[in-house]
Amino acid sequence: MSGSVVRVAIIGASGYTALESIRWLVRHPQARITYLASRQEQQPVSEMFPELLGRIDLPVRPFDAGAIARAADVALVCLPHLAAMEHVPALLAAGLKVIDLSADYRLGDGALYEKWYKHAHTDKVNLERAVYGLPEFFFDQIQAAQLVANPGCYPTAGILGVAPLVREKLAAADDVIINAASGISGAGRTPSQAHHFPERNEAFEPYAIGSHRHGAEIEKTLSRILGQPMQVIFVPHLVPMDRGILATIYLKALPGSSEQAAVAALERVYANAAFVRVRKGPLPSTKFVANTNFADIAVKLYGGRFIVTVAIDNMVKGASGQAIENMNLMFGLPETTGLL
Amino acid sequence: MSGSVVRVAIIGASGYTALESIRWLVRHPQARITYLASRQEQQPVSEMFPELLGRIDLPVRPFDAGAIARAADVALVCLPHLAAMEHVPALLAAGLKVIDLSADYRLGDGALYEKWYKHAHTDKVNLERAVYGLPEFFFDQIQAAQLVANPGCYPTAGILGVAPLVREKLAAADDVIINAASGISGAGRTPSQAHHFPERNEAFEPYAIGSHRHGAEIEKTLSRILGQPMQVIFVPHLVPMDRGILATIYLKALPGSSEQAAVAALERVYANAAFVRVRKGPLPSTKFVANTNFADIAVKLYGGRFIVTVAIDNMVKGASGQAIENMNLMFGLPETTGLL
Amino acid sequence: MSGSVVRVAIIGASGYTALESIRWLVRHPQARITYLASRQEQQPVSEMFPELLGRIDLPVRPFDAGAIARAADVALVCLPHLAAMEHVPALLAAGLKVIDLSADYRLGDGALYEKWYKHAHTDKVNLERAVYGLPEFFFDQIQAAQLVANPGCYPTAGILGVAPLVREKLAAADDVIINAASGISGAGRTPSQAHHFPERNEAFEPYAIGSHRHGAEIEKTLSRILGQPMQVIFVPHLVPMDRGILATIYLKALPGSSEQAAVAALERVYANAAFVRVRKGPLPSTKFVANTNFADIAVKLYGGRFIVTVAIDNMVKGASGQAIENMNLMFGLPETTGLL
Amino acid sequence: MSGSVVRVAIIGASGYTALESIRWLVRHPQARITYLASRQEQQPVSEMFPELLGRIDLPVRPFDAGAIARAADVALVCLPHLAAMEHVPALLAAGLKVIDLSADYRLGDGALYEKWYKHAHTDKVNLERAVYGLPEFFFDQIQAAQLVANPGCYPTAGILGVAPLVREKLAAADDVIINAASGISGAGRTPSQAHHFPERNEAFEPYAIGSHRHGAEIEKTLSRILGQPMQVIFVPHLVPMDRGILATIYLKALPGSSEQAAVAALERVYANAAFVRVRKGPLPSTKFVANTNFADIAVKLYGGRFIVTVAIDNMVKGASGQAIENMNLMFGLPETTGLL
Repeated sequence: MSGSVVRVAIIGASGYTALESIRWLVRHPQARITYLASRQEQQPVSEMFPELLGRIDLPVRPFDAGAIARAADVALVCLPHLAAMEHVPALLAAGLKVIDLSADYRLGDGALYEKWYKHAHTDKVNLERAVYGLPEFFFDQIQAAQLVANPGCYPTAGILGVAPLVREKLAAADDVIINAASGISGAGRTPSQAHHFPERNEAFEPYAIGSHRHGAEIEKTLSRILGQPMQVIFVPHLVPMDRGILATIYLKALPGSSEQAAVAALERVYANAAFVRVRKGPLPSTKFVANTNFADIAVKLYGGRFIVTVAIDNMVKGASGQAIENMNLMFGLPETTGLL
Repeated sequence: MSGSVVRVAIIGASGYTALESIRWLVRHPQARITYLASRQEQQPVSEMFPELLGRIDLPVRPFDAGAIARAADVALVCLPHLAAMEHVPALLAAGLKVIDLSADYRLGDGALYEKWYKHAHTDKVNLERAVYGLPEFFFDQIQAAQLVANPGCYPTAGILGVAPLVREKLAAADDVIINAASGISGAGRTPSQAHHFPERNEAFEPYAIGSHRHGAEIEKTLSRILGQPMQVIFVPHLVPMDRGILATIYLKALPGSSEQAAVAALERVYANAAFVRVRKGPLPSTKFVANTNFADIAVKLYGGRFIVTVAIDNMVKGASGQAIENMNLMFGLPETTGLL
Repeated sequence: MSGSVVRVAIIGASGYTALESIRWLVRHPQARITYLASRQEQQPVSEMFPELLGRIDLPVRPFDAGAIARAADVALVCLPHLAAMEHVPALLAAGLKVIDLSADYRLGDGALYEKWYKHAHTDKVNLERAVYGLPEFFFDQIQAAQLVANPGCYPTAGILGVAPLVREKLAAADDVIINAASGISGAGRTPSQAHHFPERNEAFEPYAIGSHRHGAEIEKTLSRILGQPMQVIFVPHLVPMDRGILATIYLKALPGSSEQAAVAALERVYANAAFVRVRKGPLPSTKFVANTNFADIAVKLYGGRFIVTVAIDNMVKGASGQAIENMNLMFGLPETTGLL
Repeated sequence: MSGSVVRVAIIGASGYTALESIRWLVRHPQARITYLASRQEQQPVSEMFPELLGRIDLPVRPFDAGAIARAADVALVCLPHLAAMEHVPALLAAGLKVIDLSADYRLGDGALYEKWYKHAHTDKVNLERAVYGLPEFFFDQIQAAQLVANPGCYPTAGILGVAPLVREKLAAADDVIINAASGISGAGRTPSQAHHFPERNEAFEPYAIGSHRHGAEIEKTLSRILGQPMQVIFVPHLVPMDRGILATIYLKALPGSSEQAAVAALERVYANAAFVRVRKGPLPSTKFVANTNFADIAVKLYGGRFIVTVAIDNMVKGASGQAIENMNLMFGLPETTGLL
């Protein structure tokens, strides 16, 4: 950190998480973007993202760990998985703190990674050291981390919804269903038939039942938090909108539990969480959290199950906002700096 | 029926189910709309619905059961609940067949009606005689019915998804979760803050957890079909699009069951169902059924649960299309007439 | 024609105009699809378009003009430009009537084609014989045609709006502005960055100012209809919705003209047009024509200009519906058969 | 101003402009909201707008000019027209600076107001003193103003597009067409049939041709800026999206003018405008300015006309963002404070 301003490098500047990180960082009072790296053809970043015209003037430059380390204190790695773990070791070795927004360092386990990503993990040393960047459950570790694995969007919503009631013994650990729905920005910036506007507009549909990698991330992280092996049923859907994830979670209520106790548990668990809002009035909606770093959460007891609903903006609390929240913690800044 | 053409009256011509019924009936080769009745100010129907200009010239007239019976063979009642049961007795008494698209005759039980609709049922005689108009399970009764209670949109999707696997003893009857999402036309044509465009656009959210009346309709109808009391957890959501319902149903797989057996069960149960498509390739999507009377269904086994997904167009198979399907059956026409 | 049913081949079965043609033809009472040809990998058409499952069972077959001529009376060519003129000559030579939905035969002039499409026209003989398939202005020629060039979507809306008032000497011929906006299906089915859902959703923007090929088509066709060289300013925009074109046309009112006279002129010119609705109440909206073959038109006089607004569904009156309208005329069927 | 922070009252806290003002002000480093006034039932503002939960804790209080003046330095009046001019005099008399977001003080002329708003103006003294809050053309006056009339959304886009080329004698003053399209938030928060989600979604349409009040505001303001009476043709449209206005402006090029000269004129006129971006690459899009205070502008010469396109976010540069921009100027803060 140079003086009181965190100097930030964005690595992989051509996707939506990079764009969203830039949007927030240009108005962050104690951070400054000093380096933009991309593997693609070099150009001013405002040509790649016309909305950035006049907001940031940096050119996009090649990846050069030494140059990055001279220019920046922290690297936000916005590369796809596989590419991330190619570059992270050099960034760490050059002395940078690193927040990786890809999936490469989230599972903490090379075998699990290989099972789900069909590729051997090439940086197992750092994989084991990486801290999972969900401040609601790993606050202290994040503050001390050199490498943070920034959570996936569905896992952020799913874990925030499941962990409290199971940990507080209000809900069963062995009967967890996470029904989730996401806006289309979650699919990334690369065009495809499936995400072509006329195919996606006016369409609501499930996908990847039983085969979505975020299911493994949710299970692995819940297992860590709860100290016991967790399995969940995770079913994602696509909603024809830009931003937002809503998780509707079905937990089996344990005998003697009540809705009131569940609300109290959420309030207790999240008492110090700067960005979790426990809602007792209107239910969570993606609209209420759009373009914010908040996670809204509510719980109802119905038919013997707790229905926990969690809403986040997949690009903010589900990606770049949470990355900046982690950055704040890693540099001793108040958690909410630049994020309200 | 006059000659070979069914003469149809639309009662309550100012809402979306009336509009959708008219859309389909103007191209039905063996039906003709002969009467449009509305309680509201009288005007040509194409002033109320500008899209109908040049497609139908009928004026909207007052409700007059005698005049309706002279002009028509069947009445499609598109009134809201309460209003429907005010008018249905006179229509039946005048000799018309009646298909009621409201909820008034669906529950078959005055006490249950009063519990959920907060109003005593005023036509219990016909309530008990009414046939539930879901052709996949009540085909013969519909053919013989004078009064058909056209199913709700969520119940159509939910029941089609739950009934087969439970009836075939592949899934447990006592652990049924129906997570469903609907386009906004399902909320009807009356404007409200909640369905104002800027509130609803780019918003995905749950509503009415534990308190939606369609939950009772699903339970009651499943109980009839399966011959045992059924309880379900039903959680609806709103999707920012015009049309479509997708139900994602979580059923507990019974020991020894398999995905293959479940697919076979769906194919067996729906072998003669003209409008159910069992999908083995891409999962059901509201896009694939929009503006059609089809119900698409698929099943996956994952984590000990069958995930059954069902997609319909809430305005067609979930309302007006199914009403016309019922009409076809009541008048001895092929089920698909005018609906493909 | 075999008996009283027109047998139809769809050539190029993988794009949106093919899909839309199939949707309409499966419910056309006097037409039957007998051949589907595609250059791409062969598969059942319902795998390419899941919504067609259970509605049409034909396999997709290779292009073979002889086989097509044995199976069909008419070919709807849904290929992209360039590909269309490669295949049309063989189809015509085999004795088929042909309706080409591409731009290849619309301009009627090889030099103009080469200027705008940057490629020499390879079938100039048929280019000169082709009839422009806008029934409102070329009805008789279409009836007699072997080859119809089906109009572009913007030209359909633009020409219907401009021609009447200029021909009737109410508006100047030399000061014509066509501001138009289209849903995204108009961009075709091939995915691209520009039409990726998150780029296009919640975005309204102009494109191709001064360089859109439909400008040339509008000018050329207006010149034919009006018997004088016509130039227009044509500016297209993209609207975040599936279907629909709205053209807002600014014409200079000639001295002595009035709004009343303009409305009367529209009514006179379109008195026999089955699918043009002159609106005097609510202004045209894409919503009122969605999924129909109608063109809605209205005119206002304001500030010395006639503001003519025209709405069509770009996939129906702007493409496949109009192709079927042309087919009806070519085979002596009532113009509206299968299209209401 | 108390110390270095501007204390802000929001008057009329129940509509979209209030919500948007609050969103921006809670992150403004030199402003603090100290009073929220509403005529409606009093409640915490986060119950009216659930997204504000945890971001602002103020209760909504009754209108009391004295109390407001004690608590605040400036009032942002977010009331509808008529209601605004009822309350503004008292706020001014109590010593507050006032920024009125309604139309009441924009036309500067009681007779013109009465003609368009069908109501006598009840505060003509302040009407004549009010400064039109478009900083690109009234910068100095705004700095000195006690009362600013914040511009309408369409006028902001229209005036920014028309004024430069006419003032620089590149385009004719007497042949100006402004074709504009707006997202639905521009219609306000009160629900209506016309803006009910299923009516508006997938609909693009013109409205109020020749009768929209913003036409008069554009003409009056252009007349002031250009020093000559101006008339324009203004045609608005509705786009199915939340935010954004795009104006496509057709100006007659004067002899000798060129596209290059027009671009240079825009760059010259807006050289010091903090929020105008002259685009030479991709054309303006509502997407590029969404949730920002930027106005993007480009110009093309085609067919003898300059096609000027301007995009703004109707809620930001078209309403609340511009109000805060004006506030910054009125309090000697840098124009962009809190707005990047």
